[in-house]
Parts: sequence; C-alpha cells; structure tokens
Amino acid sequence: MRKVAVLGIGQIKVDEHWDKSLREIGGEAAFLAMQDAGMEKVDALYVGNMLSSMVSGQNQLGTFFGDWIGLWKQEAVKAEAACGSGAAAFRSALMAVASGDVESALVLGVEKMTDKAGRDVTAALATAADADYELEQGVSFVGINALVMRRYMHEFGWKHEDFAPFSINAHANAMHNPYARLREKVSVEKFERSSMVATPINLLDASPVGDGAAAAIIVPAEKVLRKPKVVVAASASATDSIAVHSRKDPMFLNAAYLSSRRAYEMAGVTPEDIDVFELHDAFSIMAALSLEACGFAERGQGVRLGLDNQIHPKGRIPVCTRGGLKARGHPVGATGMYQILEVVQQLRGECAQTQVDGMQIGMAQNIGGSGATILTHILKLES
Amino acid sequence: MRKVAVLGIGQIKVDEHWDKSLREIGGEAAFLAMQDAGMEKVDALYVGNMLSSMVSGQNQLGTFFGDWIGLWKQEAVKAEAACGSGAAAFRSALMAVASGDVESALVLGVEKMTDKAGRDVTAALATAADADYELEQGVSFVGINALVMRRYMHEFGWKHEDFAPFSINAHANAMHNPYARLREKVSVEKFERSSMVATPINLLDASPVGDGAAAAIIVPAEKVLRKPKVVVAASASATDSIAVHSRKDPMFLNAAYLSSRRAYEMAGVTPEDIDVFELHDAFSIMAALSLEACGFAERGQGVRLGLDNQIHPKGRIPVCTRGGLKARGHPVGATGMYQILEVVQQLRGECAQTQVDGMQIGMAQNIGGSGATILTHILKLES
Repeated sequence: MRKVAVLGIGQIKVDEHWDKSLREIGGEAAFLAMQDAGMEKVDALYVGNMLSSMVSGQNQLGTFFGDWIGLWKQEAVKAEAACGSGAAAFRSALMAVASGDVESALVLGVEKMTDKAGRDVTAALATAADADYELEQGVSFVGINALVMRRYMHEFGWKHEDFAPFSINAHANAMHNPYARLREKVSVEKFERSSMVATPINLLDASPVGDGAAAAIIVPAEKVLRKPKVVVAASASATDSIAVHSRKDPMFLNAAYLSSRRAYEMAGVTPEDIDVFELHDAFSIMAALSLEACGFAERGQGVRLGLDNQIHPKGRIPVCTRGGLKARGHPVGATGMYQILEVVQQLRGECAQTQVDGMQIGMAQNIGGSGATILTHILKLES
Repeated sequence: MRKVAVLGIGQIKVDEHWDKSLREIGGEAAFLAMQDAGMEKVDALYVGNMLSSMVSGQNQLGTFFGDWIGLWKQEAVKAEAACGSGAAAFRSALMAVASGDVESALVLGVEKMTDKAGRDVTAALATAADADYELEQGVSFVGINALVMRRYMHEFGWKHEDFAPFSINAHANAMHNPYARLREKVSVEKFERSSMVATPINLLDASPVGDGAAAAIIVPAEKVLRKPKVVVAASASATDSIAVHSRKDPMFLNAAYLSSRRAYEMAGVTPEDIDVFELHDAFSIMAALSLEACGFAERGQGVRLGLDNQIHPKGRIPVCTRGGLKARGHPVGATGMYQILEVVQQLRGECAQTQVDGMQIGMAQNIGGSGATILTHILKLES
C-alpha cells in the first residue's frame, strides 16, 4: 500500500447560497483545491454527497462535476454513506491511489440543501435512518438522537446544561473561521434558553444544515515536495446496525470504537498522541459519545471533558477547532471533507486564533446515520 | 497492485418482485454469493445502487445491507454512477483489495424499482441525465437516446429493422437464462411491429426495468484454490460530458473508447482476444455504439455485426449471451454486477445452450447516463 499525501485543499463558507447552484458550489471548492495543489488535472474524481438526487434532481455527481470543472475524460464516481459520505469518498480515493492504479485524485464533499423547502430536506435526511424499522414508527432523525441523549442523561446522571461546553467551544472557535456558518458567541444561559427541537435536544445542541463544499487533492506521498507535508497515516471504516434500537447498547458508538482502534493501530499511535480531534458533533450528545468510544474518556464521562475545560484549542484534547458541525455547519455529504480539511489546516499551522500548539497528528471522524457508518482518518506531518 | 479473483457469485431473477422488499432481494443475492464462495464473513461490503433514496426512502445502503445480512461491524459503502453503479461498486471494492487494505469484499448491485408508480420511476431515472441542461428542456432519458439513434440512422444510412438482430439475439439467449426477465422469442416482424416509445426507439429496442440483485465475493488471487479460477485482468473507468449535446460527436462513445483501450492495455489483449462482450444494450443503438467504440467494428458499422450474424454465442464476438439489458432486464444499479457475473459464468462454463466455446477472456462494460460514465472490466481464466 502506497503512502498518500494531501497536496491541496479548498473550501467555501457553509451558508445558504441562494445565488449559487449545486454545480457552482462544488466547482468553487474543486478549483480552490486544484489551485492550492498547483495542479490543473487529476486522474480521478471522487464525490461525497447524500441528497442531490432528492434535492436537485441530479445523480451521477462524479461525472457531473468532472463535466463542470473540465475533467471530461477522467474516471469519476460518487460515494454515499449518508452524513458519512464525505469521508467515504476520501477513503475510496485513498484506496485507488494506495493501490497504484490512480496517480492523483480530487475528492469533493458537496451538499446543496437550500433548494427545497425545509420539510422536504427533513424527509430527505430521514433516508439516513432505517426506513422500515425507524421511520415507519414516525420518529425523525433528531428524535432518534434525542432518545439516546435522554437515556444517557438518566443513566449517567448528567443535566442538560452539562452539555453546554460542547456548543460554547464550537461557537467560540467558529468565530475565527471564515468558512463557518454560525459565528456568534454562546453562553451557558443562552444554551439553556434556546428553543426546544426534540426534548432534550434544543437548537444549540443541534448542528445547522447548509450548502457547503470542501475538496482535497491527494497524491502518492513520495511525489510531494511541498512543506509542511501532510500524509494520511490511517484510514478505517466500521459499521453498526442502522436502527439504534437494534444495538446492545445504544449509548456506545461501537463503530467509532472499532474504526478508531484500527486507525490507531495503523498509525502506530494512541489517543494520547492525537493533538486535534475533529469529531462529528451533529448533536452535543454525539460529541460526548465519540470522545468515549475513541478512548478520550471513560463510559458516561465524555461530558466531563467539556466541563473540565479540556476541549478548547489549548486543552488536553481540542475538538471542533474550526467550529465543528455545530457552528461551522453540517452540509451533510460535505461534512467529512470539511473535517479532513480542518485537520490539514491545523497541521499546516493555518488556524490563527484557534491554532493548536505543536501540531503533529490530527484525527477526523465522520458519522453516517446515528452511529451506523463511522470513518476515522488520522493525518500527520512528515518531514 | 495485488491481483484479485472472483471467488463466488449469486444472483436473483430480474423481475417484478412485489412480494419482496429492497432488503430481501439484496440479501438473497448476497447470501448466494457467500454460499458459492464458501465464506460466512467478509471484511467489507460495497453496494451499487442508483434509486433507493427516491424509490424506497432508504440511503446508506452499504451499512443497510451489512446490517441485514449480519455483517454488523464491517466497513460498508455505496457507490453511485447512475446505471453504471454496479460496476462502480465493483471497481471500488477492487481498489480496496488491490491496495492490500481489505482482504475480502462482497460487492452487491441491487435495485428495487417496482415500489413506486411508473411515472415516479421515470422521473427518478431522469436524474442520470443533466438536470439543468437536458431535463429542463423536457427531454426524457429515452428521448435523448432516440435523438442519437435517429441521427445515427441518418448519418450512416441504416433502417430501423437493421437493429433487429440485437434484440433477437438478446431474447434468444435469455430463453436459456433462468435469471432473465423476458424469455420470449423475437423475430424481425415482431421487432418492427412493436409499440413506439420515442421515435425511432420502440419497445423491442428498449430494455425493461425490474427488481434485481447480483453479488460477487472478491479476494486476492493468490489465496484462491478453486478451479476454474477467474481473475480480474483489467478495470478501467472513463467519463464524458453528462449532456449528450455537449459532445463533439454524439454518436461516438468516447468514454467507452478510453476505458476499453485502458483495459486492453492493462490486460495485455486486443479486441480479437475477447471471447465474450457483455455490453450495455439499454437501447439497441447503444449496442451498436459500444461495439464501435471498443474496436469491434468501424464507425457506423456496429449494426453490421448483427446483420452478419456475428454476435450470437458461436459468432465472432458474442454479446448479451445471457440476454443483456434487453432481455435479462435492466435493474439499473444492479446491471453492472449482472454483466460481471455473466462473464464469470461464461468463464466457468456454466452457460449451457449459450455457452461460448473455448472461453478464456471476457469483457463487461457498464454505462451510467447516455455514455457519460463508462466502466470496462476484463476477466480471464488463470490456471
């Protein structure tokens, strides 16, 4: 397996881009990545997307974007794993370059969510859950997560306000990220006063959707002269049942446990070595569960890392350093690529006020469904 | 790059499976493949599918099927390239096994098309075309192909009945394939009398949709003791503009040309060495264009191979030996895997009345959109 490096990155602000189409937002991120990499052409294009067939009436997004950005002949394909589509596309590209069959690849995570009414987007997002065994019961996607959060609070004795630090940290970091959707400060009071979405999940527990696109160029590491050089140290994917009620323990993200353990092993590191963890905080409960499953906290104690002030950029395990899903925004199929780009930015030292000191190793974890498909990538600096 | 072998295959009849769900048809094919391979577990699952989010309200099909068939922890992902999704999933799996990161993979092409009304399925299929520049003009997917066929007839001087041999051959072969949807004989008279769909494409020029699922297990070739041993000699993918009107020449499948040339080179063969060509005859015009682009006929002369009786199982270049899209059926996201399975069956000598003599090398070509994404795989026997 060839070692692979990330040569260039490009992203747009997560926002309601009413004036731009799916085509345009994806194209912008792709061109920025190619410009950053100093390349005009790549061998293959991998697109991560979840909703375009339902929201934009467009499938075949690999070829669609190849067409738009002038890669008229190259291989192209779309990978889909619900909200885990971005990292799934990254891993597909990685396998192709690692195998030796592809010499350079553009990976694009893209989602246009504002071209349909909110209720249609909610219905489209619900395709991430189990249509037969969850949706048929009338439970929405946020409803499923609310049931998990309620049970967690009951089981481990936490109050709702104990989750506030996740939201506060994400929003504080997003204020320094020009690509973040929400750039406003949150306090414990504001967190507690926020409108309820599905008890106990309120608006400040939940990530906002939005239009977004983030892209990277990957090539064999041995071909990269650029410094700092960011290489992919590990890539792993694991799954769980789609329906949360089918799991032995709905409060343990077994797929996060499995994919992070495999990634640590591949990279030859332990949780202590991770300088930044871009986790999938679609809801604040997911931040806590991710920290636990990946070995940063004991069962039921993920919340404590926030309360102990350990998750900010100078803390023991910085998370959501660019705003996370909560404040950078969650354009579902694009999110996994935003996370990977944010780790690259940390490794390159491009994060200004939220830069983590002494960055050597960063981890990005993207989740499809409520913990159903979980992909973990570890990136590091190589001299 | 490690050499990869196809260890097991499984398929169900393409049909209107009113009594079975998406879950059930995919599961059946997957279990048959695992049984054929003598394996109870694989490392990873790759699913090819185009329509499930729109037709069945279900996304994240990789994990969905992992869940259903008992692969609760393994990596899983969906690949989508419209009607080319089946081969796209196969190629994704191939890259992962070839890279050395995955030791065994299940590839499943699956499509459930009968759970919605016909007009909804037609709308869902239209997402394969360019939503902004084709569909907005009001042209349907079959309409786009009809325009190409009309131009081809005009340009090269063929009559409609000259295309009859493609349909006749496909139907004749399907009569011996228990998995084929249409098993009835077609004559030139019947072909010419068939109902018009979009002039000049009539019902016997067009492939029927249907519910279908076809699966294969792939592993590193060096681990396979089973005889006959079927290995993947080449895999290549190429693209063209999605909108047919954007192409310099709408009657030349440039992506088929590029991917077949690359595949011939990888396998070290020429068109003369191909014993069977499972081509993508979604419409009879596509059969002619594929034969031309892949080097079996001169420009405008693909039709002649049919008229000269060269495409049946004892002819110079047997095509659609199990019925092709025309008569086996075209369950869109599953089709690419049916094609690969049919080449495997020919190589194993399992095709009885339509068995090609002296099988050594077979080619399968799967197309997404009207020639937009084209994947070519060459499989061969290895002693």
